[in-house]
Amino acid sequence: MIIDCHGHYTTTPEGVGAYREEQKRQVAADPKYVGQKGQVKVSDDEIRESIENNQLKLQQQRGTDLTIFSPRASWMGHHIGNESTSKFWTEHQNDLIRRVCDLFPKNFAPVAQLPQSPGVSPANSVSELVRCVEEMDFIGCNLNPDPSGGFWKDASLADRSFYPLYEKMCELDVPAMIHVSASCNDCFHTTGSHYLGADTTGFQQLVMSDVFKDFPELKIIIPHGGGAVPYHWGRFRGLLQDNGYPTIEEAALKNIYFDTCVYHQKGIDLLLDIVPVENILFASEMIGAVRGIDPETGHHFDDTKRYIDNNEKLSAEQKALIFEGNAKRLFSRLKV
Amino acid sequence: MIIDCHGHYTTTPEGVGAYREEQKRQVAADPKYVGQKGQVKVSDDEIRESIENNQLKLQQQRGTDLTIFSPRASWMGHHIGNESTSKFWTEHQNDLIRRVCDLFPKNFAPVAQLPQSPGVSPANSVSELVRCVEEMDFIGCNLNPDPSGGFWKDASLADRSFYPLYEKMCELDVPAMIHVSASCNDCFHTTGSHYLGADTTGFQQLVMSDVFKDFPELKIIIPHGGGAVPYHWGRFRGLLQDNGYPTIEEAALKNIYFDTCVYHQKGIDLLLDIVPVENILFASEMIGAVRGIDPETGHHFDDTKRYIDNNEKLSAEQKALIFEGNAKRLFSRLKV
Repeated sequence: MIIDCHGHYTTTPEGVGAYREEQKRQVAADPKYVGQKGQVKVSDDEIRESIENNQLKLQQQRGTDLTIFSPRASWMGHHIGNESTSKFWTEHQNDLIRRVCDLFPKNFAPVAQLPQSPGVSPANSVSELVRCVEEMDFIGCNLNPDPSGGFWKDASLADRSFYPLYEKMCELDVPAMIHVSASCNDCFHTTGSHYLGADTTGFQQLVMSDVFKDFPELKIIIPHGGGAVPYHWGRFRGLLQDNGYPTIEEAALKNIYFDTCVYHQKGIDLLLDIVPVENILFASEMIGAVRGIDPETGHHFDDTKRYIDNNEKLSAEQKALIFEGNAKRLFSRLKV
Repeated sequence: MIIDCHGHYTTTPEGVGAYREEQKRQVAADPKYVGQKGQVKVSDDEIRESIENNQLKLQQQRGTDLTIFSPRASWMGHHIGNESTSKFWTEHQNDLIRRVCDLFPKNFAPVAQLPQSPGVSPANSVSELVRCVEEMDFIGCNLNPDPSGGFWKDASLADRSFYPLYEKMCELDVPAMIHVSASCNDCFHTTGSHYLGADTTGFQQLVMSDVFKDFPELKIIIPHGGGAVPYHWGRFRGLLQDNGYPTIEEAALKNIYFDTCVYHQKGIDLLLDIVPVENILFASEMIGAVRGIDPETGHHFDDTKRYIDNNEKLSAEQKALIFEGNAKRLFSRLKV
C-alpha cells in the first residue's frame, strides 16, 4: 500500500470560492464583521467530479493508494478577515474534507486546517481540532507558523502560547504538519520561497526550544522535504552543537518527520541519504505547487513516487517504510 | 590559488562594538538622532592581532590563499537606528575592511556593506558603493534583501527602486552578494532560518522578475549554497515553467552564482552535482555561522575546502574553476 501523506483539496467546486469571496467582501467593508457560518453550496456530484478528474485519476495513474488529505493550504488565508470569519471558513473547509473522505473512503483520509488568526491565541484552535478528530475522525492537522501571511508577526512555535494545542495533539495522538498559507507579502512567492522558508523556520523554532522536552510525544511533519534542512544538515548540526543543544538525533528526530515533496531525483536522493528512513514519509503535494511535466523526464515534476522507486541506495524494505509503514505508525488514527 | 569568496570581519577589536553601542544608545533615546561620523578607536596592532589569530591562521591551516572580505553581516543591522546612523556605521565598517586589506594585501580583498535602512530608497546606497569601489578599490558589495531584519517590510529585489543600484553595479562591474543581517524577529534564527530563507527568497525574487532582462550584465551571488535552491532545483524549474518564465539556465544561470557555504559532504556533493560548475564559487563563511568541530569528521564544519577536495565527481580542472577561475572572472576588479 502506498500512502501519500500530503495532498490538498486544490480543485474545489465553484461554491467554495464563492463563499470565501463573499466573506472577503464583508470583511473588506467591515474588518470586525462577525457573520454566520452560512452554507457552502456544493453538491456531492460536484465533489465527486472535482476529485475523480484530478487527484483520484492521478492516484491511479501513478499507482498510489491513499492520500492524507487536507484543505487547500494557500486558501487557509489566516491573515484574511478575523477570528470569526476564519472559524467559519475553517469549519466549512474541514467539513468539505470530511465529505471527500466519505465519498472516497478508500482513497482519502482527513486532515484539518485550524482556525488560526493573527494576534489570536493558538489555544483558540483547540476546539476545532477536537471537533475534527473526535466528531469527524480526522487523523491530523496542519499548523500555520505564520498566520500573518509572510510578515512573521506572531509568536514562534517555541512559544508557550502553543502549548494548549500541543497538549491536545498529544492527548488525541494526532500529528501536525507545519504548513503556511499564501503570502500576502510581495517579498515572497507562496509555493516557493514562502513555503520552503517556513519549513526551515518551523524546524529551527522547534529544535532550538523546549517544546519536545515538554511534549516528548508530540509528532511534527516538516513538509516539502524539510525546506532547506536536509541540504544544510551540517549547518543545523553545527548550530545545535554551538548553542549547547543536544544532537539533531535527540533534538529533532524523535519528533520530526520529513515528507518527500522534492521534485527531482537528486534532491530526493539527498533526502533519503541524509535523513533516517524512519523519519521520512512519502508525499507528493499533488495537485499542488508544481503542476507541469518535467521536459527532462517526460513525467510530472510532482510524481515523487518515481524518484523513490528509482533511488538506488535504499532497499525495498526501507522504501516500504517510506511508502507505508512510517505513515501508519505516525497516524495512529488512520484506519486502513 | 584558492579564493574564498565569502568571509566577514567577525572578530573586530573592541572599539568597533563600542562605537556601535554608543550609536544604539543615542537612537534609543532619539530615533531621529543624526550625530556625526565620529571615530572608531581601533589601532593597526589591534586589527593585526584580530586577523592573525583568527581568519589568517585558519586560512593557513586550511590551505586557502585569499578571502574576499566584508563587514560582519549580522552587524550590518540595517533595522537599527536611521538612515544617518546607518550611513556613518557603514562607512566605518567599510573603512575597517580597507584597513584589513591594506595590512594583509595578499590575503584579503575588500567587499562593502551598503548603508541601507528600512523605508529608504536603495538608490541612496549608490554613493557609498561608488566611494568604496572608486576611492578604495573595493571589488563587490553585499546587498540586504530585508533591511527590516526579519519582517520583510521593504520592497522585493525585483522592484524598480533597486534599479539605480543595479545600474551602478553594472557600470562599475561589481557583483553583489544577497545577504541579510541579524534578525530582530523572534521567529527567525539569524544564521539558520533567516540566512537560508533570505537566500532562497532573493533567488526567487530575481529569477521571477525583469531584473536580468533589464540588466543582463548584473552579477549576483546567492550565499550559503543558494539556501534551499539546489535541493529544490526541480521545484524552481517547475515553478518557472508553470509561470511562463524561461528555463532556469536562461532565467538564473547567466547572472547568478552560488557559493559553497554548505557544511557537510553530501550537501556539497549535491550542489556540485546540480549547479553548473561555472556558477559555483568556493566559500566558507569563516569565521562565521558555525564555529565548532564536527565530531563525525574531526574537522571544522565550515572547512568547506575539504568537502570539495573529497568530492569524487568533479575533475581537478572543474575544481580549479570553483576555487579560483570563477572568482577571478566574476570579480573583475580583483587584482591577483
